[in-house]
Amino acid sequence: MNAPAEKFKIAICQLRVTDKKDANLDNAERSIRKAARLYSPEMVILPEMFNCPYGYGYFKRFAETCPGISTDMLSLLASELGIYIIGGSIPESSGDKIYNTSYIFGRKGDLLARHRKIHMFDADITGGISFQESRYISPGRDMTVFDTDLCRTGIAICYDMRFPELIRKMTLDGALLIIIPAAFNMTTGPAHWHITARARALDNQVYFACASPARDTGSGYTVYGHSLVADPWGKVITEASHDEEIICADIDLEELRRIRKELPLLQHRRPGSY
Amino acid sequence: MNAPAEKFKIAICQLRVTDKKDANLDNAERSIRKAARLYSPEMVILPEMFNCPYGYGYFKRFAETCPGISTDMLSLLASELGIYIIGGSIPESSGDKIYNTSYIFGRKGDLLARHRKIHMFDADITGGISFQESRYISPGRDMTVFDTDLCRTGIAICYDMRFPELIRKMTLDGALLIIIPAAFNMTTGPAHWHITARARALDNQVYFACASPARDTGSGYTVYGHSLVADPWGKVITEASHDEEIICADIDLEELRRIRKELPLLQHRRPGSY
Repeated sequence: MNAPAEKFKIAICQLRVTDKKDANLDNAERSIRKAARLYSPEMVILPEMFNCPYGYGYFKRFAETCPGISTDMLSLLASELGIYIIGGSIPESSGDKIYNTSYIFGRKGDLLARHRKIHMFDADITGGISFQESRYISPGRDMTVFDTDLCRTGIAICYDMRFPELIRKMTLDGALLIIIPAAFNMTTGPAHWHITARARALDNQVYFACASPARDTGSGYTVYGHSLVADPWGKVITEASHDEEIICADIDLEELRRIRKELPLLQHRRPGSY
Repeated sequence: MNAPAEKFKIAICQLRVTDKKDANLDNAERSIRKAARLYSPEMVILPEMFNCPYGYGYFKRFAETCPGISTDMLSLLASELGIYIIGGSIPESSGDKIYNTSYIFGRKGDLLARHRKIHMFDADITGGISFQESRYISPGRDMTVFDTDLCRTGIAICYDMRFPELIRKMTLDGALLIIIPAAFNMTTGPAHWHITARARALDNQVYFACASPARDTGSGYTVYGHSLVADPWGKVITEASHDEEIICADIDLEELRRIRKELPLLQHRRPGSY
C-alpha cells in the first residue's frame, strides 16, 4: 500500500448504454482505456446501469452474478491498468431477486466492495417521469464505505444520494470522497441534480463525484447526463454535457482539510440537539 | 383557532440595521406595517439581529430580556395586525450570558416560541470572512418547532441551517414551513446561500424561508442579503436583492402534499440503514 496521496486524479466515463450488453461492455472497456491514456487517473468511475438500459424490460434479462462477464472485465482491466475501477452499477442476480449493484475493484483486480442500492426510485410526477424501480429491483440495506491507498471512499447509487442522513453517515465513517453512479432523468435532472450534489459535497466537506450515462433521447427513460465532481466547498470543478464524454478531476485532500479547518462544520455538529 | 389554511402568504422584511437600536426598532415597525398593507400576509418574518449590528462590539450593549422594548414592539404589532411575527433574532441577555434568540408572536401578541441559535458561527476563511461568534454568544441547545393556525412551523437561525440533521429533525417533527433568520456574508453568501436553502427545501419537501438583513458595505460584517423562499421542489419562488426590500410568497400546502405524494422522499427513508 502506497502512502496516502494528497492529490490524485479521478475520471468519469459518461457512457451511452444500448440494448446490447456486449456492445455496452466493449464500450465501457474502450472508454476506461481511453480515460487511462488521456488522464492517467488513479480511479475510473462508470455510470449506474452501464451495461443495461434503465427500463423494466431489461433488468432481469441483463442480470448476472459476480464473478460474471461484466465484473470479470472490470477486474481484469483494474489489474492490467493498476487503477481502481468503480463499476457504476449492473443488475445483480441473487436467488430470485435482482439488485442494482456496484462492484468496486482495486489495483490488483481484487473485489474491494459491493454496494446494493438502498433506496428504490418509485416516483410518479405529474407531467414528468413515472417509474417504479421496486417492481423489478430489490433494495439493499447497508451503507458502503471502503479504504483505498488514496483515501477512504464511500459509494451509493442514484436515488440514495437524495437522503442526507446516508451521506452524513458515510462522512462520519471517514469517507473523504463519495461516489454516486446515477441516472437522473429529464424531470429530476434539471431540477435537482446540481443542487443535491453540491449540497452533499458542501454539507459534508467531501469530494462528491456523480457518474451518469449519456443521454439517449430514443430510449424509454431519458437520462440527464451532466456527470460532475463537486468539491468540499460545494463548487462543481468538472462537468460533462449530455453526450458521451470522459471528464477528469483533481481530488485535493490538502484543500479538503483546509476547508474543514477554516469552516469546521463537522466539528460544529451538536448531536445532542438532534 | 381557524381551520388550517391550504394557501397563505408570508412576507419577509429585509431590513437595514444601524448602530442605533431605536432607529432599528422604528424601521422594523414601519416595515412590518408596510408588509401588512402591501400584501396582507398571515406572517411577517424579520432578519437575524434585526435590532443590532452583527459585530463583537454590539451584542452585549444591545442585549435585552423578554419582555423588553424589542419584544414588546413585536408583540403589540402582532396583536394589532392579527398576524404572526417571527422576530428574526436579537441578542438576549440571560444571567451573564448572551444568546442569539428569535421570539415568535401569535395573532394575539402571545409569545408562541423562542429559539436560541444552536450552532455558533466560528470560521476563519483565507481571503474571506473571519468571525468567532462564540466569543460573545452562548449556544442554545433545543430544536424549535411550534404550531400556528397555518401549519406546523420550525425555526432555526443562520448557521443552524448548515446542519442537515437539524432541519430533517424539524421535518420529522411535522414542520411544513421552516424559517431561518440569517446573516450570511460576502464570502459564504455567494458560495452557499442558495444551494443550502434550496437543498434543505428539496430534501425535506418543505417551504424554506430565509430572512437576511440588507447589505451595508460600510459595516464591519457585510451581509449578503438575498432573502428568499424556496418551495418543496427546491425552487426559489421569491428573492430579494441586497437592498432594503419586502418580499412575499404564497405557501401552498396542497402543492407541498402533491410533491410529497409524487416523489415520496420522506416515506422512502430507510432509518435502519443509517
